[in-house]
Amino acid sequence: MGEFDLIKRYFKREPRRAALGVGDDCALLQSAPGTQLAISSDMLVEGRHFLSTVDPRKLGHKALAVNLSDLAACGARPLAFTLALALPRVDEAWLDAFSEGLLALADAHDCELIGGDTTQGPLNICITIFGEVPVLEGKSQALLRSGAKPGDDLYVSGTLGDARLALEVFRGTLSVPAPVFELARSRMEQPTPRVALGLALRGIANAAIDISDGLLGDLGHILQQSGVGATVEVDLAANRVAARSLCTSSAGLPGSQIALEQWRSWALAGGDDYELLFTAPVAARDLVAKAAQSSQTAVTRIGRIEQPSGLRLVDSQGQALPDNHTSFDHFT
Amino acid sequence: MGEFDLIKRYFKREPRRAALGVGDDCALLQSAPGTQLAISSDMLVEGRHFLSTVDPRKLGHKALAVNLSDLAACGARPLAFTLALALPRVDEAWLDAFSEGLLALADAHDCELIGGDTTQGPLNICITIFGEVPVLEGKSQALLRSGAKPGDDLYVSGTLGDARLALEVFRGTLSVPAPVFELARSRMEQPTPRVALGLALRGIANAAIDISDGLLGDLGHILQQSGVGATVEVDLAANRVAARSLCTSSAGLPGSQIALEQWRSWALAGGDDYELLFTAPVAARDLVAKAAQSSQTAVTRIGRIEQPSGLRLVDSQGQALPDNHTSFDHFT
Repeated sequence: MGEFDLIKRYFKREPRRAALGVGDDCALLQSAPGTQLAISSDMLVEGRHFLSTVDPRKLGHKALAVNLSDLAACGARPLAFTLALALPRVDEAWLDAFSEGLLALADAHDCELIGGDTTQGPLNICITIFGEVPVLEGKSQALLRSGAKPGDDLYVSGTLGDARLALEVFRGTLSVPAPVFELARSRMEQPTPRVALGLALRGIANAAIDISDGLLGDLGHILQQSGVGATVEVDLAANRVAARSLCTSSAGLPGSQIALEQWRSWALAGGDDYELLFTAPVAARDLVAKAAQSSQTAVTRIGRIEQPSGLRLVDSQGQALPDNHTSFDHFT
Repeated sequence: MGEFDLIKRYFKREPRRAALGVGDDCALLQSAPGTQLAISSDMLVEGRHFLSTVDPRKLGHKALAVNLSDLAACGARPLAFTLALALPRVDEAWLDAFSEGLLALADAHDCELIGGDTTQGPLNICITIFGEVPVLEGKSQALLRSGAKPGDDLYVSGTLGDARLALEVFRGTLSVPAPVFELARSRMEQPTPRVALGLALRGIANAAIDISDGLLGDLGHILQQSGVGATVEVDLAANRVAARSLCTSSAGLPGSQIALEQWRSWALAGGDDYELLFTAPVAARDLVAKAAQSSQTAVTRIGRIEQPSGLRLVDSQGQALPDNHTSFDHFT
């Protein structure tokens, strides 16, 4: 199968929203009046972002999910994406499953594939995604990293640290009962982009980011770009590890022997969570709760933004805890 | 150096046109009223699209040039691009030169870097580029592959086949004098995207494509998508190999011994030319000449679009020539 047959068979569909889709030198996309385009690119490399053994259907899901998560963090409505794909060889079963997983998630978010590239090379998946953000009275409604204000509550969506737990099992450094592993593995391989929550938080949240490199590292970007500091109550985050709840509710599971410090570390610096970390005024607590409800997404308040710069970690008694967590960096 | 320092040092600049550039979850780009966005992605892989020994400055140029060429083929004005980069390691000298070559060409086309991704992995460069096309009275002014009409002249810009000649020298299948190789090598490593010509051809050309996989292969896309056929006078294309002119003008050069059939093959199916192949009505010949002049780009008429489907190759006497040329395909 040649390059053009491959595109036609697995990836070409009739454009619905785009003025022109796959098959010309460029795709054509027209923004609605009074909107701007939110654009993000993510590149996934075998061995770095996914294991070579991963189910290609789940990989297709994840490749788009991490991009949708960036739109969610900006409060942008998904519109379209391009896919550039380097493949070692044409493997029809792999392409079948990969494209199914990819396009199923795309359909769920009404986000259409409008173009891209295919080439031979070490497996590499690069998606660039486009979303729409309203501009009201000249002001973008996008959620940014730079808007956090002293006094804001700090929130996180969903669950934390499970992807890292699964990675440790894959690495062989940890052994957990099958139900715990399956739960964690699904969070690692098929993260849920919090698009509905991001949309619901427009006009409510002051700042937002998606957690890809670990909660504290990504919080650092908000603090730096907003020129503020924060206090995080560590165990409110550590309680958000879904696998931990499972261990706790099944006291006989050996996983319940995992030390508190370990849960804390996975929650604060695990990486690959694709949850939203955001800040909002104390006066907006009811609105945040409503946004969580309308988007059917759990939201947990884990701390507060403060004037003094720097990050302070405390336990449930308010006692200071050391910050010895390092976030994920591809080059260090 | 970590991922964020790397981005800051080599790739982060103040946005001029974008509402938000590098450094948040998404970039924000607002289209001008009455325009649509032309979008294209190209992925370059070491060993497929460039040799591992290439000067990184030239690689930076080429990575953006092949994307600008897609905008040119649509008649789109360059606006912005994202860069996703997988690097085996952080090599500061390499990054210095690569970013210089990339950003110099970006500046020359007033096309700004607004976001992207960096990760560790086998060297891979994925650029997604954004251009602007006017929409007049509800009709996009983009040049498409599908607009060719029977009777149209068929034109090609610039020069053909030199990149392939250089590749053959690198492969060791050919030996040519140094001046011939240097000329061909610069065409292979630093192609010139025909952006100004593409813009000048809006409203004049009926169809256009950029030649990346070889003239005949890319012409095939125009014919198929327009539902037409064509006759190409082969030696009008073969005369456009710049290295051939150099050989001819320096009769003592051994390169002048290269057979006519070889020049024809490189011109028709060499690949990596990044010239524009376009069609326009016979009545528009003066306008095409003016577009060539205003964009300071050579344009050569090499054939004609016809009603009967299929591709016919002829010599200067109108005698049929066999088409035994195959265009480049990454998977066959």
